[in-house]
Amino acid sequence: MGGAAAGTKWIHHIQRLSAAKVSSEAVERGQSRVIDASLTLIRERAKLKAELLRALGGVKASASLLGVPLGHNSSFLQGPAFAPPRIREAIWCGSTNSSTEEGKELNDPRVLTDVGDVPIQEIRDCGVEDERLMHVISESVKAVMEEEPLRPLVLGGDHSISYPVVRAVSEKLGGPVDILHLDAHPDNYDCFEGNIYSHASSFARIMEGGYARRLLQVGLRSITKEGRDQGKRFGVEQFEMRTFSKDREKLENLKLGEGVKGVYISVDVDCLDPAFAPGVSHIEPGGLSFRDVLNILQNLQGDVVAADVVEFNPQRDTVDGMTAMVAAKLVRELTAKISK
Amino acid sequence: MGGAAAGTKWIHHIQRLSAAKVSSEAVERGQSRVIDASLTLIRERAKLKAELLRALGGVKASASLLGVPLGHNSSFLQGPAFAPPRIREAIWCGSTNSSTEEGKELNDPRVLTDVGDVPIQEIRDCGVEDERLMHVISESVKAVMEEEPLRPLVLGGDHSISYPVVRAVSEKLGGPVDILHLDAHPDNYDCFEGNIYSHASSFARIMEGGYARRLLQVGLRSITKEGRDQGKRFGVEQFEMRTFSKDREKLENLKLGEGVKGVYISVDVDCLDPAFAPGVSHIEPGGLSFRDVLNILQNLQGDVVAADVVEFNPQRDTVDGMTAMVAAKLVRELTAKISK
Amino acid sequence: MGGAAAGTKWIHHIQRLSAAKVSSEAVERGQSRVIDASLTLIRERAKLKAELLRALGGVKASASLLGVPLGHNSSFLQGPAFAPPRIREAIWCGSTNSSTEEGKELNDPRVLTDVGDVPIQEIRDCGVEDERLMHVISESVKAVMEEEPLRPLVLGGDHSISYPVVRAVSEKLGGPVDILHLDAHPDNYDCFEGNIYSHASSFARIMEGGYARRLLQVGLRSITKEGRDQGKRFGVEQFEMRTFSKDREKLENLKLGEGVKGVYISVDVDCLDPAFAPGVSHIEPGGLSFRDVLNILQNLQGDVVAADVVEFNPQRDTVDGMTAMVAAKLVRELTAKISK
Amino acid sequence: MGGAAAGTKWIHHIQRLSAAKVSSEAVERGQSRVIDASLTLIRERAKLKAELLRALGGVKASASLLGVPLGHNSSFLQGPAFAPPRIREAIWCGSTNSSTEEGKELNDPRVLTDVGDVPIQEIRDCGVEDERLMHVISESVKAVMEEEPLRPLVLGGDHSISYPVVRAVSEKLGGPVDILHLDAHPDNYDCFEGNIYSHASSFARIMEGGYARRLLQVGLRSITKEGRDQGKRFGVEQFEMRTFSKDREKLENLKLGEGVKGVYISVDVDCLDPAFAPGVSHIEPGGLSFRDVLNILQNLQGDVVAADVVEFNPQRDTVDGMTAMVAAKLVRELTAKISK
Amino acid sequence: MGGAAAGTKWIHHIQRLSAAKVSSEAVERGQSRVIDASLTLIRERAKLKAELLRALGGVKASASLLGVPLGHNSSFLQGPAFAPPRIREAIWCGSTNSSTEEGKELNDPRVLTDVGDVPIQEIRDCGVEDERLMHVISESVKAVMEEEPLRPLVLGGDHSISYPVVRAVSEKLGGPVDILHLDAHPDNYDCFEGNIYSHASSFARIMEGGYARRLLQVGLRSITKEGRDQGKRFGVEQFEMRTFSKDREKLENLKLGEGVKGVYISVDVDCLDPAFAPGVSHIEPGGLSFRDVLNILQNLQGDVVAADVVEFNPQRDTVDGMTAMVAAKLVRELTAKISK
Amino acid sequence: MGGAAAGTKWIHHIQRLSAAKVSSEAVERGQSRVIDASLTLIRERAKLKAELLRALGGVKASASLLGVPLGHNSSFLQGPAFAPPRIREAIWCGSTNSSTEEGKELNDPRVLTDVGDVPIQEIRDCGVEDERLMHVISESVKAVMEEEPLRPLVLGGDHSISYPVVRAVSEKLGGPVDILHLDAHPDNYDCFEGNIYSHASSFARIMEGGYARRLLQVGLRSITKEGRDQGKRFGVEQFEMRTFSKDREKLENLKLGEGVKGVYISVDVDCLDPAFAPGVSHIEPGGLSFRDVLNILQNLQGDVVAADVVEFNPQRDTVDGMTAMVAAKLVRELTAKISK
Repeated sequence: MGGAAAGTKWIHHIQRLSAAKVSSEAVERGQSRVIDASLTLIRERAKLKAELLRALGGVKASASLLGVPLGHNSSFLQGPAFAPPRIREAIWCGSTNSSTEEGKELNDPRVLTDVGDVPIQEIRDCGVEDERLMHVISESVKAVMEEEPLRPLVLGGDHSISYPVVRAVSEKLGGPVDILHLDAHPDNYDCFEGNIYSHASSFARIMEGGYARRLLQVGLRSITKEGRDQGKRFGVEQFEMRTFSKDREKLENLKLGEGVKGVYISVDVDCLDPAFAPGVSHIEPGGLSFRDVLNILQNLQGDVVAADVVEFNPQRDTVDGMTAMVAAKLVRELTAKISK
Repeated sequence: MGGAAAGTKWIHHIQRLSAAKVSSEAVERGQSRVIDASLTLIRERAKLKAELLRALGGVKASASLLGVPLGHNSSFLQGPAFAPPRIREAIWCGSTNSSTEEGKELNDPRVLTDVGDVPIQEIRDCGVEDERLMHVISESVKAVMEEEPLRPLVLGGDHSISYPVVRAVSEKLGGPVDILHLDAHPDNYDCFEGNIYSHASSFARIMEGGYARRLLQVGLRSITKEGRDQGKRFGVEQFEMRTFSKDREKLENLKLGEGVKGVYISVDVDCLDPAFAPGVSHIEPGGLSFRDVLNILQNLQGDVVAADVVEFNPQRDTVDGMTAMVAAKLVRELTAKISK
Repeated sequence: MGGAAAGTKWIHHIQRLSAAKVSSEAVERGQSRVIDASLTLIRERAKLKAELLRALGGVKASASLLGVPLGHNSSFLQGPAFAPPRIREAIWCGSTNSSTEEGKELNDPRVLTDVGDVPIQEIRDCGVEDERLMHVISESVKAVMEEEPLRPLVLGGDHSISYPVVRAVSEKLGGPVDILHLDAHPDNYDCFEGNIYSHASSFARIMEGGYARRLLQVGLRSITKEGRDQGKRFGVEQFEMRTFSKDREKLENLKLGEGVKGVYISVDVDCLDPAFAPGVSHIEPGGLSFRDVLNILQNLQGDVVAADVVEFNPQRDTVDGMTAMVAAKLVRELTAKISK
Repeated sequence: MGGAAAGTKWIHHIQRLSAAKVSSEAVERGQSRVIDASLTLIRERAKLKAELLRALGGVKASASLLGVPLGHNSSFLQGPAFAPPRIREAIWCGSTNSSTEEGKELNDPRVLTDVGDVPIQEIRDCGVEDERLMHVISESVKAVMEEEPLRPLVLGGDHSISYPVVRAVSEKLGGPVDILHLDAHPDNYDCFEGNIYSHASSFARIMEGGYARRLLQVGLRSITKEGRDQGKRFGVEQFEMRTFSKDREKLENLKLGEGVKGVYISVDVDCLDPAFAPGVSHIEPGGLSFRDVLNILQNLQGDVVAADVVEFNPQRDTVDGMTAMVAAKLVRELTAKISK
Repeated sequence: MGGAAAGTKWIHHIQRLSAAKVSSEAVERGQSRVIDASLTLIRERAKLKAELLRALGGVKASASLLGVPLGHNSSFLQGPAFAPPRIREAIWCGSTNSSTEEGKELNDPRVLTDVGDVPIQEIRDCGVEDERLMHVISESVKAVMEEEPLRPLVLGGDHSISYPVVRAVSEKLGGPVDILHLDAHPDNYDCFEGNIYSHASSFARIMEGGYARRLLQVGLRSITKEGRDQGKRFGVEQFEMRTFSKDREKLENLKLGEGVKGVYISVDVDCLDPAFAPGVSHIEPGGLSFRDVLNILQNLQGDVVAADVVEFNPQRDTVDGMTAMVAAKLVRELTAKISK
Repeated sequence: MGGAAAGTKWIHHIQRLSAAKVSSEAVERGQSRVIDASLTLIRERAKLKAELLRALGGVKASASLLGVPLGHNSSFLQGPAFAPPRIREAIWCGSTNSSTEEGKELNDPRVLTDVGDVPIQEIRDCGVEDERLMHVISESVKAVMEEEPLRPLVLGGDHSISYPVVRAVSEKLGGPVDILHLDAHPDNYDCFEGNIYSHASSFARIMEGGYARRLLQVGLRSITKEGRDQGKRFGVEQFEMRTFSKDREKLENLKLGEGVKGVYISVDVDCLDPAFAPGVSHIEPGGLSFRDVLNILQNLQGDVVAADVVEFNPQRDTVDGMTAMVAAKLVRELTAKISK
């Protein structure tokens, strides 16, 4: 609501004003200055962190958090725009220790750094439209990848952000990746409620763009005929919960990314059964257990070049912040997968 | 509490008044008029819906929701009396799509219609006692079955309602059915706290009446010696959670209803572990997962002639309405099982 | 959402079907049968209750609860559709005694009876549009007034219901009434978001219809220019919270209804500061205290012919059901005002 | 916790690294680059908004929101760091209209604009200490004031931010202001738990700096001997709740700011009784009602040059977001006071 | 439930066993040993605290907390049995300072000490009946009063405990006291649901026993005919909320206890409007504000010899522990009243 | 917080006073008197219960509840200090029957008795330090074991209490036991934050003391390098969740305690996935299901001489008291394992 609505309102005013007294060039120039300053801020923070890692030496790849607090492309609730600070809070919360399950130390800056949030709401509020906003996200991801050995671990935001993120990863690396996509929904509609950037369409955009060779979707249990048809059209490997017990062995022994530029992992928190993660916008019973997800991730073989954790909705996380802890542990274990 | 207490109070007043100034015949006549109007309302709604389906043609069986907001026969909390509107809300809630897991379209009236609620609280408040109330429920179920191709999918209410519902189904079809009963408790006490219509006694009444040939109880984990003895007395097949891992294969390949009038499915939401469905009156850890339940239902072979989903308690559903969504998805998948 | 959405969907199907295979006359006939059965049910319950009171004798006026669970004309949240059963529960809840503050005994049927709910959701689901639905509400109110000494105490529902209720009261009594209207908002927009039956327009409809002589609005603190202009246009006496401290004495000594058919009281629960009643759809700080409201009501002089309590939203009543208790105590004290 | 803890951790790493392999000059340079980029972002957004207003013309003073999400100088809970996005959400939330109580239209950009948040957490995470951070806040406030006709309406954050904000206001205007300070606590400790920038010391810093001529504190009810002694030392006018009933008339007729540079208003949400605003870190019963606060603000005479709303803690706002609505209405009515 | 139910069960077993194999003398001896050990524990703690105060010197009267975690005499909910630890937690909670509003320092042991809880549940669980339990409470109170300068400030518990507490105070001091009783209910029924020790009857027992000269009841708003009749019978001065605005001045200038042994203050948390204290068993809108209560207490003249704060129910305190803070501040300000 | 903080404060006062006016011998003597009275209370209650069982005859071993409400050795939250009364409440709560899953009757005193709580907070508040406090816990456990056939079933409290409990069990029986330890964490740090009695160090203390032969840790998923090194150093058998699927068969067929003094079972509620038990201080996703735990416990072969259930935190149990029910069912099934 709020943030997004304010943004919408501003677009309106700026357009009305443009017609009347302010030249559209002046508006455009002001927007460009705001965007440039935003990207400079990301770049400088990435640079400072990477300089430190390079001075320390011996790091081949290192996860770096990049928050994308965008929620307005959700069809239902906009709470994911508030997720990044809550996930960070839960990562560093004193109630658990700082090791991953297999022993990586998150306190070590060689394992995990943070380059902050893309100022999404501030940019939208200046009247910037979605197409340009998506490019700002892509540029931010590239700014992180520019600074070796950083690899982006993106904190959503709704699922619409995976499109500009994967696009940037593929463009920067110079070719497609393999994607492991954990979700209750296929998110591959041609467009949803007239919005081509909808969180329900991001994987249609990714496949059309040629940014992925293989796309594996795991955890599906709310899928329409269009979802299955689009899956076939794009050659997606769809694993539905109805048959999870017989697919389990295959999924706990995946090998991905060979012959392409590596592996991208996109985790929609609602892949989990709501018993494990009630703090999501779309409650869909019958999902994976938390251990199921870790078994798939920990046993995956492949070079993970980037990842995202999306659709955590803090406005629904009413049970002692449990879903924030769940999102945080997903981030922690993805960090273990990326950093080396 | 409230609704029920009001009812109880009225019974009291009406009895006192009867003795004094109003003849019991006058009271009886007023009650009969109220009951007749209630049944007429159900009948007219069923008729209107069925006329539409018959005009459309090609439908053999079609699930039709019938709410029974009765909670006063519960031994502990009366919240289930408030369940039917909450379940309907969650079925049509915009946060999920309108397909079942195997692709049936719920928006299609040939798949799902609704005939509304039996006005239980209004009837009780006129001084009508339980025996007669149970007959009103039975008559309402028959009113739905009268209108081909409708089949009743009953929304409880506490578990006491399964007795008048199954009785009506069996009487209408002219013989016994097989029952698949998912529950943490056997609900087969001879009588509970002096109440023969208690929600803990409904399956004793059903078996005594000869309305079922086989009764399979799945998910049991709170059962006393009487519960096991009654089970043996009535030839019930009881599957306790203690041995679920070895019973699983059998339960995921059931074939029921041949040689009788079909299959009846009764789902007490507390068959689920409270992690999956905290919104119930009797929290009993150690239950089925949501996927366990769907595996059993989706793989069942048999002609499902009617079903109920009971004991959802909205007053305990404090986690983002998660249990309402769980109850709704049970109704959706049962609809897929019934309609054809 | 749910209930209302289901209704909307059905309208759609029924219209599509009409065009195709079912004649609109057949649909219309089915709807009429459903509406007739609904009104018969209200009438029979009113008759039974009134017969008892007349047999007891000595009652001049007696409050009778009539629930109108309608929430779809709200601009924001539809929770008030779930209010009537929760208010009844809180009225009879064992945590308080059954006397009003000045000593009337609610257990006495001469003081308070109940004729149940108008089956709003069931009627809408058959494709009945708002204009006709509003007439069903009016007819239900008249059905209660038909049975002396009953006077309707209506449980909303959103504020849109006050229009058909006041219309029925005025038509039945044969002339206008004086209205005391407690609310944070004036609810007198010409139409709101294209809906002439909106909960924000009910008092515009009432004034246009000539159903009220004087209209006093108390508790206002969210009012636009249109709200003030409409107020002037209709001669409304608007008392804003900004000046409540100087208006207090006048408001605690009101005398209304002389020379007209009596007094109607409409209490929107959001007239109270949200500290006292958080369970409402529109939280607007700076309102009346609970004692302020009772001081106004208890000291009012006039013959109260009917009343409503609206806009309680159980979906927002997360603090131990406190707002349900608040709505219930408003009903209890209004009962004391009506019954004699 | 989270954000702040992450920051603390990084300071540690950066200092350890400094000693070892990275020169402190390099760290310092990186920090400066981050700070410069942050201030550029604020400046550019202020410039864009002000250009629009100047083009529209006819505006003498216009409130512009500046968020300062800083919570680590709180002695108890750090939740206020999460407040600015929640307050914005509530300002624009569709549940209330967009007029203030006296009829100013918030949708009009001449009345209210927004320049976004100072990226506090991101700057701290780079190892920047509090003294420098406070200067960044001051510089941000000046950046807004640089762009006529904007006047800063600051969204906290904890109360420690009022010191750098008032300092900037006074330095920019070239002399002291009068301050109206609504709070349960005097916040004038010499230093608190060794922290001179504590949220409990901000008004000691302000008075020492000579940034205020008169300081009126209203709503006090948790005050120690030191609090009263410091009050006398600085000539503060302290109004305690114990005597509010006799002070009320004086406080509802204040005239401030003549002969100095204008009036600054600082509203700590905990000036309200927790019944009206439970979402605060320090629950202190016995406070002002919401209407009491509005009566004081709406009747104040003086030229309000800047204001803040602080100490709203979203982590405690568990009652339907009521306190967010309260903070938002305070911001709305302060906007009405500032803009002209 | 729990604790109390366990106790009830044990009584049953012990009685059955007595009849069979264990002599009732043996049971009685065991119970006596348990009670003796309980009282010894209270006595030793009181002695240790008082020795310290006497060594410090200069203290005339000093409040000492005594918890009485008894909830089974409540007619509705038993949560008050869990209150004492929560109130202590809130008294010392770091979110507020340690001074009372008028400047007494709670950290000073001369102002406030604590002698712990009477082990109510443990004693009941040994089969001890209510009459004897009430004597244990009286003996505990006397044990505190035995040790000058300690004066008991009792933390309930439900309101039934005021009877044994006042009895002990009066017996120990050798004559009646004046009682200021703040409550929504008169608690003076002859007996309630057959229980002479009910929380609704304690003040009937006190008046019959001659333990009070004057009894002032303030805050009443749920009172039946019996409540008013009993009030007249015992000469109680009952102040109802209906007329609070005209009684206010008298109540804010009370002078009590002269010519008798002093003043006893009993504060039922539900005297407050539920907006200020939702965490109570009996929600009754229309009560006092927190400041109203402090105005009455702070302006009262008289020697307060003992006090209680009762009926806080932590199981209902779902709003950030706000009611615990309210109960704690009542205890703090009563401490200021007692200690000198 | 509260209780603990009060305790800390008192230690401070007592030390300061000691130096000044009160001799340390006097303080020491007062403390000893308090401790003696506490142990006497436990002893007398155990004696009374055991006398009854011995009189009944035929009991070889009988579980007896001993509460240890200690929370200050937790590194994060102190809520477990409030757990024992809540667990008792849930054991006897009327919402479930009184049989264990395999049919033992909990209402039978031969199966389950209760000796109450060690008054931990009261003792600490007198200035008693941890070393001495731990001996009080050990002495309390021995006091229960002294009275045949009672066996202690200890209700924590945080996990630090397992050290003094196991020490007492081993010393009393005259040799080591085998321990089955269910937990998300190994709790075997040498010391944690400088506290050798930390809840994270208890099993280091147990192994150093030679109180256990074998230690099996099941459910681990938050473990650092030190945790694994300490495990090796002490010969602990650590089963991590990462490999649970392959360890499952072994763990569901354990045989322990032969050749030593028996088996001790320590259940940290956080061994469960937070979906099943959200009410814990350390939320760590990826844990056991409730049925997994019961499968391990019900199939374990061995003579269980004592057990504990720890780390349930009622302050986090916001979902309808579900975790209290989970803790209670663990206690119920452990009772079935112990009593014979």
